[in-house]
Amino acid sequence: MRELRRDPVADRWVIFSAERADRPMGAITEHIVEPDSFCPFCEGAEASTPSESFALREEGSAPDGPGWRLRVVPNKFPALSGEERPSGNETDIYQRLPGVGRHEVIIETPEHDRSLADMPEARIAEVFGAVRGRMREYRKDERIRCAQFFKNHGQAAGASLPHSHSQLIGMPVVSKLLAEELEGAARHYRQRGRCVFCDIIEFELSHGQRVIERDEVFVALAPFASRFPYEAWLVPTRHEARFDDTDDAVILALAGMFKQIAARLNRTLDDPPYNLMLHTAPFGPAPPAPYHWHIELMPVMGRAAGFEWGAGFHINSVFPEDAARVLREAP
Amino acid sequence: MRELRRDPVADRWVIFSAERADRPMGAITEHIVEPDSFCPFCEGAEASTPSESFALREEGSAPDGPGWRLRVVPNKFPALSGEERPSGNETDIYQRLPGVGRHEVIIETPEHDRSLADMPEARIAEVFGAVRGRMREYRKDERIRCAQFFKNHGQAAGASLPHSHSQLIGMPVVSKLLAEELEGAARHYRQRGRCVFCDIIEFELSHGQRVIERDEVFVALAPFASRFPYEAWLVPTRHEARFDDTDDAVILALAGMFKQIAARLNRTLDDPPYNLMLHTAPFGPAPPAPYHWHIELMPVMGRAAGFEWGAGFHINSVFPEDAARVLREAP
Repeated sequence: MRELRRDPVADRWVIFSAERADRPMGAITEHIVEPDSFCPFCEGAEASTPSESFALREEGSAPDGPGWRLRVVPNKFPALSGEERPSGNETDIYQRLPGVGRHEVIIETPEHDRSLADMPEARIAEVFGAVRGRMREYRKDERIRCAQFFKNHGQAAGASLPHSHSQLIGMPVVSKLLAEELEGAARHYRQRGRCVFCDIIEFELSHGQRVIERDEVFVALAPFASRFPYEAWLVPTRHEARFDDTDDAVILALAGMFKQIAARLNRTLDDPPYNLMLHTAPFGPAPPAPYHWHIELMPVMGRAAGFEWGAGFHINSVFPEDAARVLREAP
Repeated sequence: MRELRRDPVADRWVIFSAERADRPMGAITEHIVEPDSFCPFCEGAEASTPSESFALREEGSAPDGPGWRLRVVPNKFPALSGEERPSGNETDIYQRLPGVGRHEVIIETPEHDRSLADMPEARIAEVFGAVRGRMREYRKDERIRCAQFFKNHGQAAGASLPHSHSQLIGMPVVSKLLAEELEGAARHYRQRGRCVFCDIIEFELSHGQRVIERDEVFVALAPFASRFPYEAWLVPTRHEARFDDTDDAVILALAGMFKQIAARLNRTLDDPPYNLMLHTAPFGPAPPAPYHWHIELMPVMGRAAGFEWGAGFHINSVFPEDAARVLREAP
């Protein structure tokens, strides 16, 4: 059973995805991944995932068989699904929605031990391209308002299987962080008539101290108010609200910049676990003020605890100017 | 050096607390706590903490010596401090504040292996009473706008030392979650002319399915939009905005209810790590709409990952109706 519920005070939606049980336990702290156990994401194990919704394959190879270099499959335990019915009947102060949406896994490579950052640029670009393609599919469904693409690399970053993969969740409401960013972008636009991200890029490029790397298409920044040590944002310098509207040249440049920054993080922090998140405008009509898609990359160096959950603030022990300098100087 | 920085898009403050270094590393994933190593929170080790700002002691015992049953000391590595100077000079799109505030540790017991929930009710009440006392002290400082009390129990919940303790951080800005709750409470008040928490209590008590326990003074709920499996809120049934204004009878009742709920969680989930957070109105003038202080208690059963950091949403695999039933039925 899947359902979205809104907290009446904090205006925060929570996705419930549960089988009702006598003694429901939820996720148990840290999945145990046994290195030698069966991997459902390896070539030859296609039958152990739901049927693929997209794949890049050798010519002539059959769906859900070997011969692929990338597969997209529905999540076996989806947070949201296409076939949920309205549930419950309390109303009054509470609001709920059926858990309608999509939840897919992008299996980025058939090789069990290959990480995304180690793949050739063209292959990384195929991963981002597949995400763009799936989002173009999702946006045809009017019930889906936005999609969250994310990757958890390493067990401490929340990955439950070591085989390199990422996930895409299509949601019937705009996510909380995206709503906040849209509001912040609108506030900035009202005050200055400009895209706040374009202003950030201009400011950072002219000051330089938080720039990790730049090329013709992307700038990689340690953001001014980084929540985590060595947090990095990859921002396309050309203004564009939606990742799903971007072109192949930008996708290829994104792959190159991701590979560069991941290599710098790996050399500096010794292959850290990380979370990667795409921020992009909701589907549907144009947003009321300029938005600007980008990728946020966060090495996992600690974990959120009482202060973060209570205050919604973060305490960061590394200034972004220092992080950017160290990453620029990485051999 | 300490500084607060505001993200210009997400309107989110981050506290920077760092010594500048050539190769700053930040927190390393999971502190390693060696069970036999020296504990700075034990009786006899008073010299290894900063001087106590408050203590409950045997009559005649000297400050910063043995003979105490509770000590409050400044954090040795404070996130915020009373003596920060304004820093930096960039302005334009960015906003920053000096890292002014307080950061104290409440050492809840001299016994190394005693957990808060195992202490007698009267001793637990002394802990909450000490927090109230420190908040009454903090609020005299006009630079401090609100305080976040929190407890991380267990290594997986972020505790860096096993000896039972909690923390209090006084901040120069209102925390993000508190600001959101104040806004939600104001919205509800505009629409209904009532305190949203009082309405929640009334609704939950009349429906019953998410009530874990209640007595004359408190109700313990599995909240409608729980972010985490077995999340529990302890809410005083009498309307009161500020924890720092509450009286001894409520403090004692809180201790009793905390002990009850912690025992139910321990029996159900086998002594889980948990985070405990106090939510209370900011210091200074009365809030513009009714607020209602409460405690949020969250067993740690997984960890936030890419989806949570990207979307600001949570996926919860246990419905609160199920969690409340299981906790009610705990032996």
